[in-house]
Amino acid sequence: MRASRFFISTLKEAPSDAEIVSHQLMMRAGMIKRLGSGIYTYMPMGLRVIRKVEAIVREEMNRAAGIELLMPLVQPAELWQETGRWDKMGAELLRLKDRHGREFAFQPTSEEVITDVVRSEIKSYRQLPLNFYHIQTKFRDERRPRFGLMRGREFTMKDAYSFDRDAAGMQASYQVMFDAYTRIFNRFGLQFRAVAADNGAIGGSGSHEFHVIASTGEDALVYCPDSDYAANMEAAEAVAPAAPRAAAGAALVKTATPDATKCEQVAAQLGLPLSRTVKTLALTVDLEADGKTTQQHFMLLLRGDHELNEIKAGKVAGLANHRFSTEAEILDVYGCVPGYLGPIGTKAAVTVVADRSVANMADFVCGANDAGFHYTGANWGRDVAEPALVADLRNVVEGDASPDGKGVLAIERGIEVGHVFQLGTAYSESMKATFLDENGKPAPLQMGCYGIGITRILGAAIEQNFDDKGIIWPTALAPFELVLCPMGMDRSEMVKQATEQLYADAQAAGIDVIVDDRGQRPGAMFADWELIGVPHRVVIGERGLKEGNLEYQGRRDTEASAVPLAEIIAFVQGKMQK
Amino acid sequence: MRASRFFISTLKEAPSDAEIVSHQLMMRAGMIKRLGSGIYTYMPMGLRVIRKVEAIVREEMNRAAGIELLMPLVQPAELWQETGRWDKMGAELLRLKDRHGREFAFQPTSEEVITDVVRSEIKSYRQLPLNFYHIQTKFRDERRPRFGLMRGREFTMKDAYSFDRDAAGMQASYQVMFDAYTRIFNRFGLQFRAVAADNGAIGGSGSHEFHVIASTGEDALVYCPDSDYAANMEAAEAVAPAAPRAAAGAALVKTATPDATKCEQVAAQLGLPLSRTVKTLALTVDLEADGKTTQQHFMLLLRGDHELNEIKAGKVAGLANHRFSTEAEILDVYGCVPGYLGPIGTKAAVTVVADRSVANMADFVCGANDAGFHYTGANWGRDVAEPALVADLRNVVEGDASPDGKGVLAIERGIEVGHVFQLGTAYSESMKATFLDENGKPAPLQMGCYGIGITRILGAAIEQNFDDKGIIWPTALAPFELVLCPMGMDRSEMVKQATEQLYADAQAAGIDVIVDDRGQRPGAMFADWELIGVPHRVVIGERGLKEGNLEYQGRRDTEASAVPLAEIIAFVQGKMQK
Repeated sequence: MRASRFFISTLKEAPSDAEIVSHQLMMRAGMIKRLGSGIYTYMPMGLRVIRKVEAIVREEMNRAAGIELLMPLVQPAELWQETGRWDKMGAELLRLKDRHGREFAFQPTSEEVITDVVRSEIKSYRQLPLNFYHIQTKFRDERRPRFGLMRGREFTMKDAYSFDRDAAGMQASYQVMFDAYTRIFNRFGLQFRAVAADNGAIGGSGSHEFHVIASTGEDALVYCPDSDYAANMEAAEAVAPAAPRAAAGAALVKTATPDATKCEQVAAQLGLPLSRTVKTLALTVDLEADGKTTQQHFMLLLRGDHELNEIKAGKVAGLANHRFSTEAEILDVYGCVPGYLGPIGTKAAVTVVADRSVANMADFVCGANDAGFHYTGANWGRDVAEPALVADLRNVVEGDASPDGKGVLAIERGIEVGHVFQLGTAYSESMKATFLDENGKPAPLQMGCYGIGITRILGAAIEQNFDDKGIIWPTALAPFELVLCPMGMDRSEMVKQATEQLYADAQAAGIDVIVDDRGQRPGAMFADWELIGVPHRVVIGERGLKEGNLEYQGRRDTEASAVPLAEIIAFVQGKMQK
Repeated sequence: MRASRFFISTLKEAPSDAEIVSHQLMMRAGMIKRLGSGIYTYMPMGLRVIRKVEAIVREEMNRAAGIELLMPLVQPAELWQETGRWDKMGAELLRLKDRHGREFAFQPTSEEVITDVVRSEIKSYRQLPLNFYHIQTKFRDERRPRFGLMRGREFTMKDAYSFDRDAAGMQASYQVMFDAYTRIFNRFGLQFRAVAADNGAIGGSGSHEFHVIASTGEDALVYCPDSDYAANMEAAEAVAPAAPRAAAGAALVKTATPDATKCEQVAAQLGLPLSRTVKTLALTVDLEADGKTTQQHFMLLLRGDHELNEIKAGKVAGLANHRFSTEAEILDVYGCVPGYLGPIGTKAAVTVVADRSVANMADFVCGANDAGFHYTGANWGRDVAEPALVADLRNVVEGDASPDGKGVLAIERGIEVGHVFQLGTAYSESMKATFLDENGKPAPLQMGCYGIGITRILGAAIEQNFDDKGIIWPTALAPFELVLCPMGMDRSEMVKQATEQLYADAQAAGIDVIVDDRGQRPGAMFADWELIGVPHRVVIGERGLKEGNLEYQGRRDTEASAVPLAEIIAFVQGKMQK
């Protein structure tokens, strides 16, 4: 490519609504252009990166026996009604009506359509397994689109769907996809981590998320440096303390703790570590029976230095539909304002659910159900009945024991760019997608689904790879692998000839090269390419040429190196492989 | 590709709603699957063809200095309101509202968005010319979608937009695109014709349509076999007769023509050729002034054997907003029921607009404005004043003189698959897309726009290339270029080895090859590939192998030819180039 025939448009300043670095740099580098809230034109420079992402995804999907098709964007409401997602999806599902008033969805994913295709195409177990995928535009009507391509409304996703005859087959297909994703993210040249995840609303029996590691990531990733254990924060298990609970050593004392409604304040007033305090969360569940609503009250206990994990709380028996109690309910049940609640001496009956850590505590501090007072020296069994339920209720923290028993946990930040799910028969049963098994009997298809956020990859790659000059693309994703920067091409015939020769040689060597023939000054030219993030640069100047040299500089290098003209292609190829 | 790892799904019968052969064959060959009215899933076999179309279009667009980007599907209403198309487009424009109630269009084309991009990016004439294109999904909410991919609602289009500093530049950019389209359709291996067209609602100063020639085509294409002249029926000019008008030879006679309200009936009753009769069309234009509406009446005269061309009629001065007169108006103006109208002796004032052929007639037959009567021997000047206006009002017919004076016109049927337009400043003026010219003064950008119906190409290619067995793809568009059909691969080690070797050799030679390893019987296997339309087939059988031969058969061949094993790749490559 010649820069004069391409479209390059860089900005000194990012627009003020670009809150994160990847959004700022993509806008400044002219990769995307905002059309509306969460809707972007992919400009020529950005589209090249998208195409590189797509090509790698496509190659690895094909290698993993994925079969590409293309499902429509506009999908009839009837299919979404079959699975109940028409109602479940809420405002995020963009709905529309055609000229005849028929309802449609602009697809956010395609489980319904692929299941519809397959239920009419698959008759026999002999046709299985199958894995269909497409790379297609999606729309999710986010309430607050932001962060550029990271949380846009219109975006591109690769979604794949596997169909198997039984659960073992589904798990095998899932593993094939897991391995393909691992190859894909390795080929991108990004640091990533696959973590076990909760299946959430999509249902099914198992899932993993693939995250690009970046300190700016929205998600916390939990892993064990000494083993393969990895999970996202929602799913990472906080195991029970290994040591048995210590015996009670202190007497129960009701202590004045004025204006101390938070554990941090209590610990400070009492001069005790935060880890000796217990915080109480009051939850309520509304139960409907015979047209009457009654309330059941729960007290969740966490160590003062731990955080509630709402997903885990929702999995406790009876707590699937919990809400936080109102202040009136708290006064009624505990006889006390919030901030001083505790398990000892509540006014009404509550079910106590203690986190595993709390159940293991002795001589702890907790609210006294009396405004301005806490107990110290509280002990299970002696001062209050053992908790009704003990469960994992909290987010893990660095240093917690790994659930696989092989070390302690570490935490890092990540950006979710892929997700694989074992769906089982959730969709095939509601949509009656069956096949005839070996005995000629109809059985529901076992499904898996597998997504990669194609356009989000760009944002994630930049969050992981940038500096104060701009983007630093891994070679595999760069819009161009190599930029040639001639110094005074219009003045020096020697520079012009060497540039043209090198341009031809680089193309012949299969390098995705752009020559900057715009005639800009060196400073502006270098700044452009550093902002755009082309990983390899060769400067062609008369002074160097006279000594038979060119100047190579990698995007992360602090200095250029002189490389003999005859060796430059091999030299660049060597750098590209690193 | 191995057929066992691909998805092949053929049908004996097409669904009953498939009205035309391309739709029937694409459904039967498993290329598309209906999701809703005018909405199709592109199945793996069909998607491969689409990708080949896209690749050729992309290569030639890039060669023609087109720069690829990707504009969003969901576009804010505000931009469409700037050009007035939000109101003009009617129900064909799919409109939608997001969760906040803001209005959007699902793009049918992207003139507004590209003009919005360019008006913020282009500051100076130095940045011009530019040509941006994208290959993107479109939606047009057709009232009656039909014919499969030929007139669907969701479809794929390549649309390009050129920007120039002046009209000469725009015309040069237009010519570059015209040439690129010519290369594209040549590379497809389709018979096509570029014809001059009317700009229509899109506005601007010139346009051409590219048609794939097919006897089933919706459009009539006019061309001169002895010259380059070609136009669509709307635009093809019917030139004035070369010979001067004959002198009056007969007397004007009012003749009874009972129950003859059509020229055909009059000619039959009078024993005269249809070409001696004149038909009268009564039109009315409503004029509004000072809050009052008045009517102006026009009489259009055509030779009895000619057809009205409404586009041409609309271009006659004063007739831009014409309508057909009501029966009441006809009685009022002509004093006669429809069917017996004519230019001689109307009751009220009408403007007579004669087609060029009619203005040249002598001794003609026309209605007498008296029910049941016509005049014979009518002559201009003698019996009635010369027509107020003479214009080209009719469709050309075979044998008409070519407008370039180089022969006579022929007509064939075509399917429109491409359209190039000179837009001028229609969009840039309404959207204030200007640049600074050499003198530092703002000037509106001169635009062109250029479309190719990517998915429609599939339908058009099939309408041109099929037989009673199925589709016959040109090699450039075929889902696979070559199919290998082993006979008894599971029984014969010799066949298996030869097949695997040939499969590897074909891949190494860059041939897009599929080996049918499904283990089907020969009859079913051949029928599948003939239906799917793979252009080249090699059968590998034990009997042939023992003599060192394979059997090659081209999709249009009636018989197979034995080809020595060692020569087969070169033989197939030779056939592929034809």
